[in-house]
Formats: sequence, C-alpha cells, structure tokens
Amino acid sequence: MTQIYDRVALIGLGLIASSMFWAMKRGGLAGEVTGFARSAETRNVAREIGLCDRVCESAAEAVEGADLVVLCVPVGVMGAVAAEIAPALKPGATVSDVGSVKRAVIDAVAPHLPDHVDFVPAHPLAGTEHSGPRSGFAELFDYRFTLIVPQEGADRAAVERLTALWQGMGALTEEMEADHHDLVLAVTSHAPHLIAYTMVGVADDLRRVTDSEVIKYSAAGFRDFTRIAASDPTMWRDVFLNNKDATLEILGRFTEELFALQRAIRMEDGDHLHAYFTRTRAIRRGIIEAGQDTDAPDFGRVKKGG
Amino acid sequence: MTQIYDRVALIGLGLIASSMFWAMKRGGLAGEVTGFARSAETRNVAREIGLCDRVCESAAEAVEGADLVVLCVPVGVMGAVAAEIAPALKPGATVSDVGSVKRAVIDAVAPHLPDHVDFVPAHPLAGTEHSGPRSGFAELFDYRFTLIVPQEGADRAAVERLTALWQGMGALTEEMEADHHDLVLAVTSHAPHLIAYTMVGVADDLRRVTDSEVIKYSAAGFRDFTRIAASDPTMWRDVFLNNKDATLEILGRFTEELFALQRAIRMEDGDHLHAYFTRTRAIRRGIIEAGQDTDAPDFGRVKKGG
Repeated sequence: MTQIYDRVALIGLGLIASSMFWAMKRGGLAGEVTGFARSAETRNVAREIGLCDRVCESAAEAVEGADLVVLCVPVGVMGAVAAEIAPALKPGATVSDVGSVKRAVIDAVAPHLPDHVDFVPAHPLAGTEHSGPRSGFAELFDYRFTLIVPQEGADRAAVERLTALWQGMGALTEEMEADHHDLVLAVTSHAPHLIAYTMVGVADDLRRVTDSEVIKYSAAGFRDFTRIAASDPTMWRDVFLNNKDATLEILGRFTEELFALQRAIRMEDGDHLHAYFTRTRAIRRGIIEAGQDTDAPDFGRVKKGG
Repeated sequence: MTQIYDRVALIGLGLIASSMFWAMKRGGLAGEVTGFARSAETRNVAREIGLCDRVCESAAEAVEGADLVVLCVPVGVMGAVAAEIAPALKPGATVSDVGSVKRAVIDAVAPHLPDHVDFVPAHPLAGTEHSGPRSGFAELFDYRFTLIVPQEGADRAAVERLTALWQGMGALTEEMEADHHDLVLAVTSHAPHLIAYTMVGVADDLRRVTDSEVIKYSAAGFRDFTRIAASDPTMWRDVFLNNKDATLEILGRFTEELFALQRAIRMEDGDHLHAYFTRTRAIRRGIIEAGQDTDAPDFGRVKKGG
C-alpha cells in the first residue's frame, strides 16, 4: 500500500495505539511513527519491543511536526492531553482520537485546538480483554467498523485521508454524527458491558455457588460475560461517566423489560416468555444475513477474518 | 471404545439427542439406537439423514427392550413422556434425561417410573443456537461438562455406567445434588440467558437506532447477546418456568447490583465504578487459570476442542 501520512504521533500506548502502530507498519501507511505514554514503564516496554519508531519523553515532543496526531488515552483525560499538545501542533495537522464516546470527547478536546489544525474524531469498534503496550496486534481492526465522526464544516480532504488510513489498517468505515454515535454505542456496547460487569459481580458475591463452580461451568453462558468484565476498568469507568445519559436511558429501558420478563416468570406466563423469545430471534437472523457474525462470537474481541 | 449399552432409546430428536446419536456412533458406545419424536416431520427428517438406527412411531415402541432411555424433550413435557413410556420400560433399564433444570424434572418424572428401573438425571452443559434433528454433531459434548444428578440411594452401577457413556461421548463429568445444580445453572446460564434476551428485546424496540445499525455494529459487544437470544424459545420458556425460584433470586440480586452501578453513573462516582470493574477481573483470571476458556467464547455453543 502507499504511505498516507509522513509523520504520525500516537499519544497513549495501550491496546489501540499499539495495534495501530503494527497495522500501519503492516500496510506501509506511515513514515515515522512517534509515541508517548504517561508512564515511564510503558515507554520502556515500548522501546524494548520496538513499538513506535521513536518513543518520546513528552506528548509535545511526540506531536512536533506530526501530520496526524491520534489521542489514544482514556476518555477522561482527552481534554488535558489536548491542552498539553495544542501549542506544539504543526499547522495543517489532523488531530484524531479513538475514544468510545464522541460528544464528550469533542466537547473536551475541540476548545483547546488551534484553528490551523483539523479535528476528526474516530472510534474503532474493536478491542480485546487485554490492555497495555504489549497487547496490540496488526489484525485487530481487520473487517471491523471504525466510525468516523467529522465535525460540522470539517475539511473533507482531512476526513478522507483519515478514512483511508483506517481502511489501510483493515477497517470498514462509516461516518456518523456524534450524538447518534453515542446512542448506538450505548445500545450495542456500553449497556451490554455494564450488564456483563454486573452479572459477574453477582456471581462473585454468591457464596453458595463457589467461584470454582462458576468458573468450571462458565461455558453454559456465563463465560463471555467474564471476558467483558475483564476489560480495562479505567477505560470503562470513563465511558460510562462520559456517555452517562444514553447509557442510563438504555439501562432504564433494559430494567423495564427485565422486570416484565421477571413478572412473567413469577406469574408463570409461558405465552409471554415464548412470544418474547420468538421475537428476539429475528434480530439474530438479521445479523447472520448481514454477514456480521462468525463461529467465534467474541464481543468484538478476538482477531479474525470477518 | 467399547460398547456401554446394547440398546439406547432417544425420546425427542432435537439438538442434544441428535448429537448424542452421532457421538455414540463415533465412540461405538451403543448397539442399536432407537428414536422417537412427536412430530411426523421430525421423524421423516431423522429417517432421511440416518439419525437413529430405527425411528419408531411411538415412544413406547422406542423404549421397548432398551437398556438406556434418555428423555431429550423440553422440561415442560418430561412428566407426560415418562408416564407414557413407564409401562413399556424393560426391568433393570436406566432412565435418564438431559433437562437444563433438575429438581422440577425429578419431581415430574420419578413418580411415574416403576421400581424396576433406575432413574439417573443428567445435564450436558453444551448447546448451540440451532435446534432440530439436523442440528446435531458428534463433537458437541467434547471437553464440556455433563452434570450427573443421582437420586438418594441410586444404584451406583447404573450411575457409573451412564457416566461412562457421557465420558465416551467426550464430556467431562461431575456429580451434583439437584437443588444445587439448579442454583449453579441459574447463575452460570439461566440468568445470563434471560438478560441477553432482554437486551436484544430492548435493542429491537429502539426505533432511533435502526436494526441495521444494531446489526452492523453488533461486534462491539451486542452480538453474543443475539446469539443467545436465538436459542429455542420453547426450551427456554420451560427452563425459566421450572427453575423459577433460583432464577428470580439471581435476577433480584442482579437488579440490585445494576441499580447500584446505575446510581454510581448518575452520581458520577468514578471510584465506585473503577473498584467494581477491578474486582470483576479476578473471576476472569480464575477462568483462564482453570483452562476453562479458549479464543472462541461462545456461550457454550460452538463445537471445538476445549
């Protein structure tokens, strides 16, 4: 493939940033890739494993002269990092991010950025239960959607260039408006994650069911909940705090529905249960027909060809 | 392997029974295997695909002379089927079942059985989202647990023979008391399934998030919920109606916990969320250390080597 950016800076060196580095190298998409992480230990690991062509000692140093700067830090610190790098940004550079929520990130980051850069938020719908600089791999984004969330009046050339980078890294891309993104993700990701965390917490509390039993028999349905519940706590705390309204709205609807089903169980209303379970089959058929499932359901977590 | 039973009768010819047939043939574990299904269409499909050595026109005919009779029908009809076959059971035969709940099945089946047979309930923790006579495959039980639930004063020889059959079909086996089984399954399977059904129902209701979006971006976490929610409605209706108390108890604990997390989100109590998400990591580590997970998390649904 052809090079899309001469200089790319990755701020934050966790799962997504490290996967982006290996994916950009696989595709020959970037010239020099610089990186910075807050923790000295992470920077040392990065140098040790060859993650980034140059690991810098400050975010400002990393973004100097970069044509693309990607903020790969938890949503909660995006604003602070944007303020820190703003003075060092090269005129004409594109700034992007990989946050799981978009409205809050835009509100936190945009005000700090100078007029001479383009801000093009993005969100790759890919991850694993692992985190840190050693967790990345080049195939993470293959056949997965990356949502591009351009702001009003965004420079189309900048948007299309970033889109080309993500496609070069293997992703399918779509453009979406920020608030709609946050609602769609609340349904397809954020609420399911909170629900999985909750179910694992319940199992962990139940002393009559020993951990070893919950663990041994987890394949009966519980196991994937635990995979989700092993995701990075800081990332998910920030997701829920920053997509609060949409998540609470979906969870509200969820508890309403759950109560209706609990009531049907209590009242032994088999017809209600059967009708409900029959209806939910349709959406599954839709996913299969859309070619969006494989034999390895994985909460978007396992690398594979789609 | 060596033959364990001369004559086995499978009552009901869905996913579990058809997988048992192919697994018994793979292992050479049974002489003649007879089968019966209520629906003529199912019986015709079975004959067409060679499912069972002999497909019978009645349950009584199928169990005649059988050394092992396995009830593979929905939990809600186990009692009626037991009453129907009781007079035809061969003295010394073992009667078993594959129901996902055990106390209700024992209460429904045991009273109908003559003293001259041994009743040894069992539950294979394996399945797929598919159902019907064409859905079975020999590897379904490989490396999966099958729980054997002997009654008080059960004949040990009968218990050990059935255990040997399940091990011959590839399963790991454990013995468990009925009520404890129902509680463990409520935690590891029944509650997670109801929760997944609920989340899919919510997504299906949300008109602002089009089905196509929910489907396209399902890999972000939602997809496995839909896999579960495609499971057989009749089977699951009966599971919830027949494991009512344990399921409602777990769901009650679940909603308590969920409300606490919703409140933490509303109050923006990041420390509570972070502490909770950190705690749930431990149980996941336990599952990995116990060798009970693979790269294909599947709600116990996809055939594979463990």
